[in-house]
Amino acid sequence: MREVAVLGIGQVKIGEHWDKSLRELAGDAVLSAVKDAGLDQVDALFVGNMMSASANHQQQLGAYIADWVGLRYAEAFKLESACSSGASAFRSALLAVSSGVIDTAVAVGVEKMTDSPGAEITAELATAADSDWEVAQGISFVALNALIMRRYMMEYGWEKKHFAPFSINAHANGVHNPNARFRKPITEKQYLEAGMVSDPINLMDASPIGDGAAAIVLVPADRLHKITGNPMIKVIGSAAATDSIAVHDRKDPLWLKAAAISSQKAYQQAGLSPKDIDFFELHDAFSIMAALSLEASGFAERGKGPQLGLDGQIHPAGKIPIATLGGLKARGHPVGATGMYQLVEVVTQLRHAAKGSQVENATIGMAQNIGGSGSNIITHILERVN
Amino acid sequence: MREVAVLGIGQVKIGEHWDKSLRELAGDAVLSAVKDAGLDQVDALFVGNMMSASANHQQQLGAYIADWVGLRYAEAFKLESACSSGASAFRSALLAVSSGVIDTAVAVGVEKMTDSPGAEITAELATAADSDWEVAQGISFVALNALIMRRYMMEYGWEKKHFAPFSINAHANGVHNPNARFRKPITEKQYLEAGMVSDPINLMDASPIGDGAAAIVLVPADRLHKITGNPMIKVIGSAAATDSIAVHDRKDPLWLKAAAISSQKAYQQAGLSPKDIDFFELHDAFSIMAALSLEASGFAERGKGPQLGLDGQIHPAGKIPIATLGGLKARGHPVGATGMYQLVEVVTQLRHAAKGSQVENATIGMAQNIGGSGSNIITHILERVN
Repeated sequence: MREVAVLGIGQVKIGEHWDKSLRELAGDAVLSAVKDAGLDQVDALFVGNMMSASANHQQQLGAYIADWVGLRYAEAFKLESACSSGASAFRSALLAVSSGVIDTAVAVGVEKMTDSPGAEITAELATAADSDWEVAQGISFVALNALIMRRYMMEYGWEKKHFAPFSINAHANGVHNPNARFRKPITEKQYLEAGMVSDPINLMDASPIGDGAAAIVLVPADRLHKITGNPMIKVIGSAAATDSIAVHDRKDPLWLKAAAISSQKAYQQAGLSPKDIDFFELHDAFSIMAALSLEASGFAERGKGPQLGLDGQIHPAGKIPIATLGGLKARGHPVGATGMYQLVEVVTQLRHAAKGSQVENATIGMAQNIGGSGSNIITHILERVN
Repeated sequence: MREVAVLGIGQVKIGEHWDKSLRELAGDAVLSAVKDAGLDQVDALFVGNMMSASANHQQQLGAYIADWVGLRYAEAFKLESACSSGASAFRSALLAVSSGVIDTAVAVGVEKMTDSPGAEITAELATAADSDWEVAQGISFVALNALIMRRYMMEYGWEKKHFAPFSINAHANGVHNPNARFRKPITEKQYLEAGMVSDPINLMDASPIGDGAAAIVLVPADRLHKITGNPMIKVIGSAAATDSIAVHDRKDPLWLKAAAISSQKAYQQAGLSPKDIDFFELHDAFSIMAALSLEASGFAERGKGPQLGLDGQIHPAGKIPIATLGGLKARGHPVGATGMYQLVEVVTQLRHAAKGSQVENATIGMAQNIGGSGSNIITHILERVN
């Protein structure tokens, strides 16, 4: 197993890209990552995407994107694990390079959601839940998260207002991210008065969908990294775990066991513990998921996630900064692309290029991408080594 | 890189499984492969599937199937490359085990197509072609292959009847495969008189879709292989390559360049040439694809593929047996599962368990899985070593 490093990153601004096709979005991110890496070409392409079959009537994005970016004939596949498709693609690229089978790989997450009408998107997103035992009962994805949040509030005595810091922090950080969908700070009043989506989840608890693509070039750490002037950033932990796809099937629906397993494995590989992590790009698709991720990943005791926000510990100068470039809430959540945005943002922080929301002396960053309501969770730890 | 061996295989009969859900089909194949391997459990699951988002309204088949087969919490992903999704899952499992990251993995290909009405299936299959530059012009998948076949007949002077041996051989072999969709031999007369689908492709040139699942357990070759009494079967070659997704975009639409690249790489890894291959499970989704695969993989000169059939060289006692257990034409083509059926059949031959269509002393077998009209092609070579 070779050590693997990040050589280049690329991304497009998340938004409604009516003027760009799926392949153009992915292509823009891949080509800018390859350029950032100082390369002309890579050996393989791994694509993370969830919804292209339904939203864009296009499958086999491996060949589709490889050809578009000038990698015709290269090995190329699509990985899908719902909203963690991005990190799945990254992990596959990592495995391919670390095994020695591939020398240089690019992973890209891409999603073009605004081509589908709103009602269809809701149905398409629900394919991440259990079609027989959840969706057939009429549940949507936001409703599933609302049930989890309501239960959490009941079990641990939190009120709605205690979740405000997650959204306020994300929007405050998004201001500094030119690729974020929303770049306006919000107040606690705005949080509390936002329109209800599925009680207790309101608009300010829910991340916005969008069109986007983000990409990373991976190479063996002992080679090629001197091509660019960028610092060496190694992948020092990578792990994935699943849980039941149906939330009701878990003994404790308030414990993200797949996050606990994958983060523990990643810590072990890296020889680290939560206190060594300088910042954490977590999967705040809904505020409640931020709380649960912090707990399962060892940053807060069970049931205490919101306290970190109330204590002012989640902003860039806090004990465990999260959503440092806006998170899913403000940067946006183009589902199959999100995991790659998180990793691109970890690299941005480790390059000390995060500007207004830079975490000082950031050396070790973690990203965690969640598919379904916690059913497929992938954790990565990256380290800046020079 | 560790050597990797096949420890267990499992499959379900291809057909119209109105009484089984997607997860039951996949589960049946996985559990029978794990049982055949003599194991209770494996470390990771790789799922090949193309159409579940649209045909079954279910995504993230990694977690979905892992949970169903008792692998909750295990790492699990879905791979998609249209009709080569099965071999993509196998290659990913292979990489994971050979790299040392995973000790035991199961790859499963699954597709449940009969839940969708016929017209929808045609549209869903067309997502493997280029949505902008092929499908938007009204082309279907069979029409694309018909254009290729017509051009081939024109360029190389073949007539329709010269393709008959591909279909006759496949159906003759399918008789001996209890998991095949069709188990009746056909005559040349039946071939020539079959109803036209898209001229010159008639019903006997086109493989039938269906519901199915096939699975293989992979382990490091130096371990565990003594658990069962089965012979040791190693994976000695594995390679993947892409081509343009749109057929019109190729310099020569009659040359499967991705098959040439992936088979050459696989030969090189195995230290073999085409003459060393005892049998070849090729991707005869349409008769024309059998001819093109034989040519690009080095078994026939360019434009001479049909001659092998006319010379009686493709049946189990011929020079290069193909479709030995029915191929896509008679065994059936549940798209995302097909690549795994091909590999299960290679193992069946190497175990000398193919009964009436056994290739005598089969030691080295090759499988080639094609996604799209030749846009993502994966070649594997397996060897029986004791």
